[in-house]
Amino acid sequence: MLIIDGISEAEQIRSSIAVEVSRMKESTGKVPGLAVVLVGQRQDSLAYVRKKIMACHEVGFRFSLSELPESCTEEEVCDALSNYNKDASIHGILVQLPLPQHFDEGKILNVLSLEKDVDGFHPLNIGNLAIQGREPLFIPCTPKGCIQLLLRSDVEIVGKRAVVIGRSNIVGLPTFLLLQRHHATVSIVHAYSENPEMITREADILVAAAGVPNLVRGSWLKPGAVVLDVGINPIEDPESENGYRLIGDVCFEEAVKIASAITPVPGGVGPMTVAMLLQNTLEAAKRALHFT
Amino acid sequence: MLIIDGISEAEQIRSSIAVEVSRMKESTGKVPGLAVVLVGQRQDSLAYVRKKIMACHEVGFRFSLSELPESCTEEEVCDALSNYNKDASIHGILVQLPLPQHFDEGKILNVLSLEKDVDGFHPLNIGNLAIQGREPLFIPCTPKGCIQLLLRSDVEIVGKRAVVIGRSNIVGLPTFLLLQRHHATVSIVHAYSENPEMITREADILVAAAGVPNLVRGSWLKPGAVVLDVGINPIEDPESENGYRLIGDVCFEEAVKIASAITPVPGGVGPMTVAMLLQNTLEAAKRALHFT
Repeated sequence: MLIIDGISEAEQIRSSIAVEVSRMKESTGKVPGLAVVLVGQRQDSLAYVRKKIMACHEVGFRFSLSELPESCTEEEVCDALSNYNKDASIHGILVQLPLPQHFDEGKILNVLSLEKDVDGFHPLNIGNLAIQGREPLFIPCTPKGCIQLLLRSDVEIVGKRAVVIGRSNIVGLPTFLLLQRHHATVSIVHAYSENPEMITREADILVAAAGVPNLVRGSWLKPGAVVLDVGINPIEDPESENGYRLIGDVCFEEAVKIASAITPVPGGVGPMTVAMLLQNTLEAAKRALHFT
Repeated sequence: MLIIDGISEAEQIRSSIAVEVSRMKESTGKVPGLAVVLVGQRQDSLAYVRKKIMACHEVGFRFSLSELPESCTEEEVCDALSNYNKDASIHGILVQLPLPQHFDEGKILNVLSLEKDVDGFHPLNIGNLAIQGREPLFIPCTPKGCIQLLLRSDVEIVGKRAVVIGRSNIVGLPTFLLLQRHHATVSIVHAYSENPEMITREADILVAAAGVPNLVRGSWLKPGAVVLDVGINPIEDPESENGYRLIGDVCFEEAVKIASAITPVPGGVGPMTVAMLLQNTLEAAKRALHFT
C-alpha cells in the first residue's frame, strides 16, 4: 500500500523550477511573472491565493495580485485582465474561480491572452487538448498534477481502465482528455450516472473529483486500484484550530485497505496543482523570452 | 427488434430543410451555399462528394467544388479556402478528409473561417463542444447524426452507459463529447484498450467507429443494447456491380439477434451525416443572413 506523497513530489518539482529560474535570471535578467485576479472574499479562494503567493515566492517568481470587490463590474475584471495581457513582466494570468454568480465566466475568460492562459481553460486550449495531433499551449493544472503523480509513482496508464468521477470544466473533463492522451480507457461518471458504484469498481485508476465528501466508499473500489482524490471538502471539526478540517471525496480509512496506492487529503493532489501552475508559468515565460 | 432506417430519417430532414430554403429564398432572395475543397482522386472521397452534391441539389442549396490535384501545394489549398471565406454566397466550407499524407491537416483547417466551419472540426468548436455552459457554432455531422437517430428512435440517453469504439477527431471524440452533453455515462474504447469486448458489453448504447469490418461480434453486446454502426468498410465481393460492397464495424447478422435496435450499413448513419451537413450549412446561412 502506497500513500502518494504530493507534498514531497511538489517540493521536488519546485526545487527544479527554482534552479531554472536562477538560470533564466542570470541569462536574461528576467524571472517568470504570475498575476492573479481575485473577485470577492471567499475564504477558500483567499486560502488558494495565499498558497500561490507562497509558492511563487519560494521559486523566485514575480507575483501580482489584483483584488476587486464582489460588487465590481465585468468590465473592471476585463480591464484588470487586459492590463496584465499587456504587461511584459507577467507571463501567466489566472482568474481565481469561482467568480461571483452574476459574472459571465466564459466572457471574462475570453479576454485572457491565450499565451498567458496558464490555467489552460480557454476553449482553444481545451480543443487542442481534445484533438489528437494537436498540442495545447497549457494543460490545466489539476489534471496535469494527477498525471504527474501517476507517472512519478510508476503507475501504468496505457490500456488501463480509468474512471473520472465528476465532469467539471476545471478538473473532470480535462482529466478525461489527458488520461485518454496517455492511452487509458476512460469513463466519466457524473450526477446523472446510473449505478456509479458499479462503474467505479471497474477502475484500475480512479480520479475522484465530485466535490462530495466521502462519496467513494471502500466497496466502490476494485482491489489494487490506484486512487487520486481531488476533493477538498471542509467539514466541521470542533477540535481543529479553525473549527473545520478538509476531507476528500474518498473515504480514506476504507480505501487504504483496498487500493494499492492513494493520495491523502490534504497533501495529495492539492500541492501538485500549485506546482503545475508554477510549471505552466515557467513554460509561458520561456516561450515569451525565447529562453530554452 | 428495430432496424433504424437512416435513409428515411434523412429524407424527412431534407424535406424540412427544403421548405426552409424556399422560405429563405422568398424572403431574402438568397439560398444557402456549400463549398467543398477536394484534393486528389480517392475513390471513397469522390463518392462522398457526389453524395453531398446530390443532397445540395435536392434541397436547393448552391454548391461549389474546388478540385485540386494531389500534387498541389498547401498554399493552393489555403488559397481555395480563403476565396470561399470571402465569398458571401458560400455559407459552409469543408475540406474533404483525409488529405494526402504530406499535408498538415491542422494548419489547413486553421485557415477556414469559424463561421463557415460546417464540419465543426476547428479546435475552438471542439473546445466549445467539450466545455459545459458553452455552445459550439457547429456540431460535427456524424456525431450529430448519431444523436438524432437516438432521439428520433426514442432511445433514452440520460444516465445510460454509452461506449464509443474509436477515438478519431472526426467521429469518436466528438461523439463522446456529445453523448456526455446528453448526460450519458460514456467510455471510449480504442486500439490500446485491454479487453474491449468486456467493456463494450456494458453498453446500453454502442457507437462503433473503429473502421474495422465486423469487429463487434454478437458476444460483444449486452442484450437489448442500441447499436449505431458508423463503420463503412469496403470488402471484396465478386458478385456485386463494382466488385466490392460496404459493411460496418458490427457483425450485423449476429447483432440483430441481441440488440434492441441497430443501424444497417449502408443506409444507417451515413445518410444522416449528409443530412446534418445540410442542417449545419442552413444554420450558417441563417446566421449570416440574419434570417430566422
